[in-house]
This record gives sequence, structure tokens and C-alpha cells, in this order.
Amino acid sequence: MQILTTDGGFDIVLDGRLILRHRIDAPCLFVGHGDARMDMYRGNFDIEDYVVERTPLAHAVVVGSEIGFSAASGQKTRLSLQVSGDDQNGAIAFRSEDGALNRIWIRIATEQGEHVWGGGEQMSYFDMRGRRFPLWTSEPGVGRDKTMEITFKADVSGKSGGDYWNTNYPQPTYLSSRRYALHVETTAYSAFDFRRGDFHEIEVWAIPERIEFTARPSFVSLVEAMSERFGRQPPLPEWVYNGAIIGLKDGARSFERLEAIVAAGAKVSGLWCEDWIGLRHTTFGARLFWDWKANDDRYPNLRGRIAELEERDIRFLGYVNPYLAVDGSLFPEAEAAGYFAKDENGKTALVDFGEFDCGVVDFTNSDAAAWFAERVIGKNMLDFGLSGWMADFGEYLPIDVKLSNGIDAKLMHNAWPTLWAEVNARAVASRGKTGEALFFMRAGFTGVQKHCPLLWGGDQSVDFTRHDGLVTVISGALSSGLLGNAYHHSDIGGYTSLFGNVRTAELIMRWAEMGAFTPVMRTHEGNRPRDNLQIDEDPQVLAHFARMTRVYVHLSPYLKSLVAEASTRGLPVQRPLFLHFEQDPRTYAIQDAYLYGSDLLVAPVWQAGKSEWSLYLPEGAEWVHVWSDRTFRGGQDVTVPAPFGEPPVFHRTVSEFAELFAGLRTL
Amino acid sequence: MQILTTDGGFDIVLDGRLILRHRIDAPCLFVGHGDARMDMYRGNFDIEDYVVERTPLAHAVVVGSEIGFSAASGQKTRLSLQVSGDDQNGAIAFRSEDGALNRIWIRIATEQGEHVWGGGEQMSYFDMRGRRFPLWTSEPGVGRDKTMEITFKADVSGKSGGDYWNTNYPQPTYLSSRRYALHVETTAYSAFDFRRGDFHEIEVWAIPERIEFTARPSFVSLVEAMSERFGRQPPLPEWVYNGAIIGLKDGARSFERLEAIVAAGAKVSGLWCEDWIGLRHTTFGARLFWDWKANDDRYPNLRGRIAELEERDIRFLGYVNPYLAVDGSLFPEAEAAGYFAKDENGKTALVDFGEFDCGVVDFTNSDAAAWFAERVIGKNMLDFGLSGWMADFGEYLPIDVKLSNGIDAKLMHNAWPTLWAEVNARAVASRGKTGEALFFMRAGFTGVQKHCPLLWGGDQSVDFTRHDGLVTVISGALSSGLLGNAYHHSDIGGYTSLFGNVRTAELIMRWAEMGAFTPVMRTHEGNRPRDNLQIDEDPQVLAHFARMTRVYVHLSPYLKSLVAEASTRGLPVQRPLFLHFEQDPRTYAIQDAYLYGSDLLVAPVWQAGKSEWSLYLPEGAEWVHVWSDRTFRGGQDVTVPAPFGEPPVFHRTVSEFAELFAGLRTL
Repeated sequence: MQILTTDGGFDIVLDGRLILRHRIDAPCLFVGHGDARMDMYRGNFDIEDYVVERTPLAHAVVVGSEIGFSAASGQKTRLSLQVSGDDQNGAIAFRSEDGALNRIWIRIATEQGEHVWGGGEQMSYFDMRGRRFPLWTSEPGVGRDKTMEITFKADVSGKSGGDYWNTNYPQPTYLSSRRYALHVETTAYSAFDFRRGDFHEIEVWAIPERIEFTARPSFVSLVEAMSERFGRQPPLPEWVYNGAIIGLKDGARSFERLEAIVAAGAKVSGLWCEDWIGLRHTTFGARLFWDWKANDDRYPNLRGRIAELEERDIRFLGYVNPYLAVDGSLFPEAEAAGYFAKDENGKTALVDFGEFDCGVVDFTNSDAAAWFAERVIGKNMLDFGLSGWMADFGEYLPIDVKLSNGIDAKLMHNAWPTLWAEVNARAVASRGKTGEALFFMRAGFTGVQKHCPLLWGGDQSVDFTRHDGLVTVISGALSSGLLGNAYHHSDIGGYTSLFGNVRTAELIMRWAEMGAFTPVMRTHEGNRPRDNLQIDEDPQVLAHFARMTRVYVHLSPYLKSLVAEASTRGLPVQRPLFLHFEQDPRTYAIQDAYLYGSDLLVAPVWQAGKSEWSLYLPEGAEWVHVWSDRTFRGGQDVTVPAPFGEPPVFHRTVSEFAELFAGLRTL
Repeated sequence: MQILTTDGGFDIVLDGRLILRHRIDAPCLFVGHGDARMDMYRGNFDIEDYVVERTPLAHAVVVGSEIGFSAASGQKTRLSLQVSGDDQNGAIAFRSEDGALNRIWIRIATEQGEHVWGGGEQMSYFDMRGRRFPLWTSEPGVGRDKTMEITFKADVSGKSGGDYWNTNYPQPTYLSSRRYALHVETTAYSAFDFRRGDFHEIEVWAIPERIEFTARPSFVSLVEAMSERFGRQPPLPEWVYNGAIIGLKDGARSFERLEAIVAAGAKVSGLWCEDWIGLRHTTFGARLFWDWKANDDRYPNLRGRIAELEERDIRFLGYVNPYLAVDGSLFPEAEAAGYFAKDENGKTALVDFGEFDCGVVDFTNSDAAAWFAERVIGKNMLDFGLSGWMADFGEYLPIDVKLSNGIDAKLMHNAWPTLWAEVNARAVASRGKTGEALFFMRAGFTGVQKHCPLLWGGDQSVDFTRHDGLVTVISGALSSGLLGNAYHHSDIGGYTSLFGNVRTAELIMRWAEMGAFTPVMRTHEGNRPRDNLQIDEDPQVLAHFARMTRVYVHLSPYLKSLVAEASTRGLPVQRPLFLHFEQDPRTYAIQDAYLYGSDLLVAPVWQAGKSEWSLYLPEGAEWVHVWSDRTFRGGQDVTVPAPFGEPPVFHRTVSEFAELFAGLRTL
């Protein structure tokens, strides 16, 4: 990382790449302060900034590796930057010389035709160039498209329509096609604005600790560096390879239904019952009872049944989130110990989740975090026999609570998913079950990689829509994968069914086809099971699902090799095409197909009514369509038949797994 | 206007009112520059600013009446303010010392409980405190409420849903309950932000010429001063008092239908046929043919029929707007003379109005303006026999055309309505018909008062909705009236019928009831006449309408006295309650009732399904309900019966027109 001073400014260069260009008449840095209005409604945020000041810091004085910025010559220094690092790993540290500052904007030099990816888990746009991305963990929204009726209705009824940039897992990190990565070390609200031609503008609602820059000669080595930076997941548990995890929340009936699914020929690795803690009945329908222990009424003799399943190599998974219902058994215990976040009056802050209130366990209090890990997850879940769970939420830290560490909740809001992941990982580690117990999260932020063994793509709508349907899962997997999240999966069949939008058999089948080519195959009944088709309710759907579980299991030797690769190198299982075809720029913006490892290319059918599918095969390899054994040269668009059960998947002609892949035709 | 210097700053005081408060740590002025994206789609604008710089000018040096502002001591002066005027009329003139500046923000001191009104013609919120108002002439939108289905559909299909602040007639002027007015002399995009507790923030996308301040001891004298400042309308023509203007656009059949309306007992002063120029057939339905001359096919022998009507004291009115269709007869004449605004290549700029293109007559070219006034309005309209017309549009100046005066179209966009009004007024004056020919406009901006004899409230939806229905007309009349627009009226029955939203008989009747208590009573068939009920299609509606025209005519002696008052003092005919009851703060935010002159209080029924109506009667007078003769003391909420034909109207007990008002009961 070099500072090259010039007439009236300087350039900062990273291994030949111009990163910052500062001139007195074209400054790279602006500072000021703002007074934002932030309203939260059940995890959806309405945020509007009032920028009181935004002053260009035109005058820069470079002394060694330190740059002092002021508005003009003779004015006081307002912000100092300390540049450090070598050609591969650079950093710019920030030191505010003015306590009133709470906004910075920094312009990063761009190139024409540059692509940028990352930003956490981005569901709508994998290539972020041309748009602005606020980075603030929240509900992702329903429909996520302001031109859609469903989004309009969600906005009006619950402020929950969302937009393209809303995500459970934002992260102020991007990778550029210039083969460098930028990461802002901050938990404050930030925004990446990629709409300008000459610069990317990074906005942070605080003085960030530093901005880190990583340059590598190839995309693969850049992604490896990201995984090193943000932490590496443990391998997937061995039991996962046995088949799909079946999501049912039907009380004791779930066990019967599981048997029918197994009897239909499905390969099953687990039964996931999020209602293991029992139900609460509200006017909105049945909700889970947020008191994290087995409910004997809904699941009599659960401990025994778990043991029976395990003997058949089928694991049992549950559900937990970081809140405790006021009318549960854990609440008084946590409150007596002072483990909850407080309100303005020093009382336990209560959050309304829809006809029931909860306390928010304050994970900035290390005793509270340890208690949750040991008492709740350790004792009530792991010791009870659970092999995994959905570790839900993480996006909802209210911005007005008082926390034990004394830091403004607005600055801790984004940090919460990572703290929540850490609590879960600590509980797993305490039982020696790292790499054996599997929890999965939708929320994330910087550092979640280190603690969370598996992401799930959140609550897609039960449809084929562009911004909230099946296809968004791919963008989520690819963007998060570049930042060191090796494992991603999604709710087969989608989750959110609102305003009369319900699942079709076709949707479930197309989703299952994709799920077979992800690290973990898992179904979900959705938010309204009774109104929506389930995999075991239609013989065609069930038979198709069973077939896809066999595909998944058949591929397990290959998947295990990818897991090994993730463990050693940090490469994600699902990869953008350009990761292995960086010489082919036509791959740079593809977000509806992916490489599954280096040898398989998967292009899920994500639209309704299709019997064939078109996709681009990257240049530099020869490809075999796995179902037809037909060979295609790379560097062209191809169209292949795509009947149910035969999703468009190709393998490289040259692959040590070629025989395994060929075996798919015999299933 | 006094500058009082203090430690570290100054105050500017107007007759005892603190207007500006500047301290080095709380500056009143911010400058910078922005790079706005502005997209226009058929009069609807999508505008987003990118504020590159917003620097507080903390350092102020006062020398006499001049204040030089810089960011800090020792820095160059960026903006100079020249303060002038006396205790009643002050001004702050701006002089930029920095050519790069194109944004200023200035903070005006506030008081707790302060109310603000004005902003041109505001349809949603009369009292603007607590909200932000961009001031940019545009289509007002359909529904104008983002929670409504109709607005959602309009947004998706035509970017035309609008919001509370969208208006055909913005004006950067407000009146404060502190009994002063502020006016920004600029045509640039500006915004008034009344959301802050301690200050109003005025934002202008240019360096404005000046900000004017007017202080008066009473609201009445303040409104008089506004009329003096912005210009005074000619009196209404005598013929208007004969009854309603009937809007029909049914070709020659319009004359037959008029006879039926007259035969039903309606008092009629005019027949308004906007289709007098003929029709064009598009896939959207019939549109007017934008070539401003009588169409003999649609209206055979129109000149003769106009003369026949006039003999019966019924005038004929037409329609015009500032565009010329490329396939009309006037276009080649204007193009040959170079009268059109140009595109980037110096060619005539063509604007798509929906399957037909038009040229925009460039009113900054004085020859073009004179030609339009003489050749089009003078010869084709006035000399032809028209006594009035809708002077439509004015909001659509494209922001990318090249104008004769060389000024950026972004800076002329807001000026256009006033230029358009001036062309119309000049044509009328050229025939000596000022105060005799009556044109009416929806678009406006600063100075439109001087030229336009009558506003109409624009294109309300055909419904009772809060933000686009009947009630919005009242807010429009009151806000514009405070700024010197004495005469306001609206389309009886509303105009916009989209997405299946159609008129009810009740709506037409309630609207006619209000129309009888406005300066001009005029009907409109709406945008989809065939789909919507018309006044002559339902006997109950027609009889009710006829009754309301008799009410209007009965009140004409009183209306004439109000017109005289408008001519001499500039007071609007429709007035907010507080104008004459300023000692009663409960009147300050009322926007669904008005004083009609000083002696009548009108509270139109603006909701469906009502048989009685509640309203507040101001303290300081005794009120007689005109239909029941029942007397009420002021200072209380009252409820009165409100059957069709008896809108809630009260007169002061003490009034020189008391007998006339009492006569309403005998109609």
C-alpha cells in the first residue's frame, strides 16, 4: 500500500491498482455529521438521514504513512488516516480529530467495466455495480419489488415490503473485478454506492476503525484470503450426507409423516421440528412458544423418540432465537440475573413480537451470553439430544435499548448477528460437538463466518419472482460465499405465503432440484402449512423429492471433497462462474447459475412453465450435460431439456469425479 | 430588519421577531453543491439529489448591512448576504462569491406551536408544520397516498401516483402564525422543511436572488401585503354571476344537453367545451387535438352558435395549452419562425404526450410569446368568440430543452406556469377584455397571481379520498388564497377516473354543494365521460345541481362585494377561519372548512354516507345555520343536519347580508 504524493494531492496504490485519488479540487474524503431518523417495526426499518454537514476535506498533508485532512490549508485537521500494509494486504486506519463527526464518505477509484460483488448476502443483485446498497441487518422484505402488488400490501399492512438491498446479512465488504477486496471495519450503518462512473462512494455513520484492502492475482486467491480474514467454518457433520433434513412442525404427527416420506424412497438425514418448544395461539395463527425447552404436550417423550431416530441415522433438529417470552420459564431466570437489555428507565426492555412480549438477552454482557450458551442451548438443547437447530433472528436488536457494554444500540445493531452466532458456536464447542451439531442462520454480519457453520437464505416467498423467489437464493449463496461463507442452503419450497400467494407443486419440485446441488438439502412447511402444498401431500411431488434426495446422496463423495476444500482453502461450495473462469468476462454478471465446486455447473430452473432452459457455458472447458451425456464446448449459450427431475447440470469433461457424475443418469 | 451582533454571531430581527439566529457553533447557513438526478415522465418527476458538499458557514463577518460568510475564520468568503428593509418589509439578498455553489440551506428561527401555511396551492396539508415540501411544479398525482391501491397502480403504470406535496402550483412562500411571511425569490427547485423543532430549513438548488420578509400586525394585513407583492387579479366578469359554467365535451350534442340542463331549472352562465378543437383517437381513447382553432367537424357553425348563446347571456368557453401537435396547422408556422424550444442538436424538441408529439412554444422568446398571444389566443380564440378557456398545463417544461434566453431549463421549469399565464393575460388585454374574458389555470408559481384571473384546483380523483378527493380543493383554495390568489374553483364531480374508480351521484351532489360557495361554479365530465355519471344523466342529481346553481346566483350580490374586496384589498374570496379569528388558535389548523368572505362559514360534506356534519365554529362571533335559522355561539364544535342540498353553511348574526343569507331558506 503506497502513498504517491503529487501536485495538489496524492494517490494510494495497492500492487499497481489505484485505490484512492485525492486532489485539492477533487477530494476523496468528506466528513460531517447527520441526524438520522430510524424507526423499526418488527425487524423492518424506516431510515432517513438528515445530513447536517458534509464537508470536503480538500487539504491533505502527507507525513510518512500518515495523512492529515482538513477543509483547507490553515484549518484544523479533522480526520487523520494511517496507511499501512504491503502490496497484498493494506489498511487505512481512521482517527477522528473532531468529536462532532459521525459521518464519513470516501471515494474509491474505479475502472470502466468494473464489477463488484459481496455486500454480505445480497438476494437481488449479485453484481452491485450501478446501485446503492445500505448495509443494515433487517428483515429482507416480502416481494422486495415496489412494482409488485404483494410488496405494496406488505408495506401497507406491516411496513415489510422491502427493497432490493434489504437483507438479513449485510456486510461492508466487496470484491472488485480488479482483483482486490475492500472491507470496512465498523458495525455502524454504512452504505456502498456503486452508481457513479468515476468512484465508489463508501458512507459510514461513524468514524470506522479502518478500511482494509486485499489484493491478489486471482479471484480464487482473493476468496481464500477473505475466508482467512473472516474465519473458517468447521466441516459439515458426517450425518448430513445421509440425505435431506425434513422440516415438519406438526407435533407428534411429524414422526408419522417422516416415516411416509422415508417409505416413498427419500434419503433422510434429519427431522427438523421448529415447534419442538410448543405453540402459542394468537389471532395471526399458531406461533412458536419462545421458551427454549422441549414441550412434552406437543412432543410426548421426545427424548426417547430422538434416540430411536438416531439409531436409524436420522438426527433431530430444533429451533431457537435470542428472545425469551415474558410468560416462559426462562424469562424470570434471566431477568433475576439482569441478563436482558434495558429500556430508558433501566427496566427490562420488552419487544412486541405480535401479541406477546419478549426480553432481549444482552449478549454484550458476557455472563448473559455464557448463560444462554450453557443453560439454554447447552442444557436444554444439546444435552437433550438435538443435533442442530435454526438459530433464528439476529436482525432485530432494537436501536433504543441500553446495553451492558455501554455502546449505543445503533452501533451494536449490525454486530448482533455475529454475537448471536458466537453464542451458538460456544454452546456447540462446550459439548465438543463442533462439526457435529449443525445450526443454521439467516442473519449475519462481519465475522459471522467464524461462528456460523451454515447459512440459510432466509424467508423467500413461495414463488418464482425475481426479487423474492427461488432465484434469489443463488445470489445469496454466491455473494456470501465470496466473503468466506462456504455453506449455504435454503427452504425447499420457500417460506413466506401471504396475501393468497401459495406454493405450486412445480415450485417445490424446482426448488428441490436446486436443493440437491447445495451443501444441505432441507425442506420447510412455510409460514402457513395448512394453506400450502407440502412435499408429502402429492405423490408426484413426493416421488420427485425422493429422487432428488438420491441425487444429493449420490453426489456426497464429491460434496465431501468440496467440504475438505472449504476447510483447507476457504472456497465456498457454491461459486460464481467467474471464480474458475476469470478469463471469460461474460461470466461476471451471471447470478442464476453457479459452479458446484469446480467441476459441476448448475443452472436451476427458476421460472414457471419451462420444459427447457438456456444458459451460458463458460469458455475454457468442455461441458457434459449430466442427464443426456451430450457434450458442449464452453463459450456459448446452450439450451437443454429441463423436465422435472433433470435440472440443467453440467460437468467438466475432465474431472476426477466424471464417473460419479455419469452415475447420475442411472438413478 | 435589524442585525444585532452578539458574541460569536448575530440575530436578525423583524419588528421584534427573531428570524435568523447565527452562532459559530450553530450556524444558520450552509452551502455546497449537488448533482441531482431528475427524470420526467409525462409531468411526473422522479428527483434524487446527490449532495456532494454541505458546508456550515460558521464564520460570519457583519459590516453594516452586509454579512460575509465563510467556513471558518481566515477562509475565503463563500456567500454574502445584504440585509435591507424596514420593520415591515425586509429582504436578504444573496451574492455568491464561489461559482461552484448550487445549493444553499438556511435555517429560520421558529417558535413552539408555530403554524405555517402557503407553499403555493397545497392540496393535502394546509398547515405545513411537521412536514417537508419540495416546491417543483408537476402533476399532482393520482390518489397521492402511498398506502392506497390506486396510487400504487398509478405509480406502477405511469409513475403518476404522487405524494402529499405534489402540486401543479408550488410557490416558495409561506406565512407564519408569527404574523410574518417569507418568500424566496428564485425559480430553482427548492424545499421547505418544517419538520424540525428549532428551525425551518429552506433549501434552494441555486443561489436565490433574495429572501423577502413581510411582517404585519394581523393576518388580514399580511394577506393584503401578499396580494400587493405578487399582483392583483382583475375582477370576475359580470357574466359569471348568471350561474354555473357547464362543462361538456360531446361535440354538437353539447348544445342539446345544455338546453336540457337549463330546462331543468339550472342557472347557467357558460358552456365550456374543451373539445372545441376536435379530437384525436389513440389507444388510450379520445384525446383533444392540440391545434388551437375551432374544429368545424366536431362543432359545425360554432361561431354562429356562440353568438346565439351570447344573446341568451350564456358564454362559450374553450381550451388551450402551450403545446402544438406536430400534425396540426400551427406547428409548421411556429417551427418556421423558430418559436419552439430546441433539443440538444438545435432541432425542435418534441415531447411525447401519448401517441402524439408536440413542440413546446418557447415563451422565453418574446416573439414566440407574442405570436402565441396574438395568433393563437387572440385570433383563433378571442376573435372567434370565446369568452374564456381552460389554460391547461404549464407544469411540463422538459428539463433538458434549450431555451431562447439561454437559461438552464431546470431553472425555467418552475417559471413556466407564470410565463404561460402572462401569454394568456396579454392576449386578453390585447382585445381589451381583461375582467371580461375568463381563463383558468391549475399550474402556478410566484407571480401567476398578477396574470391569472382564476385558479382551478386541478384533476382531483372522482372520490371522497383524503388526499385526492373533494376535500383537497379546500386546502388548495386556502393555501393559494393566502398568497394573493383571490379566486379558486374546481371541477364539480372531480376529474380523474382510473382503475375502475368512478363517480357516485352523492359525490357530484356534495361537490356541487361546495361549488355553489366558491367564486365560480363549473362542472366537468371528467377524463372518462362514458364510464362516469354526468349531472344530466340522473334526475335527482340534475335537480340538486339546478338548486345549487340557484344558491350560487342568489348569493351573487354578496359574491360581488367579495370581488370588490379582492380588487381593492387583495383578500381571497375563500379564507381560512383564522383570517378573521386570529385570537382563536383552534382555527389555525382547520382545512376542511372556510370562510366565504368574512360573513359566511362553509363546511362542505367531504365524506360519503353522511346525513349530518360536525364542525368547529370560531370564537368571537355568533353563527346562524342558514338552512335551519338556528343560532350557535362560537367557540364550540357543533353538529348539524346535512341532507343533500343543504350543505353546512353558517352566517354571522351580525352581517349586512343577513337578509340575503336568510333568503337561502326560501330557494
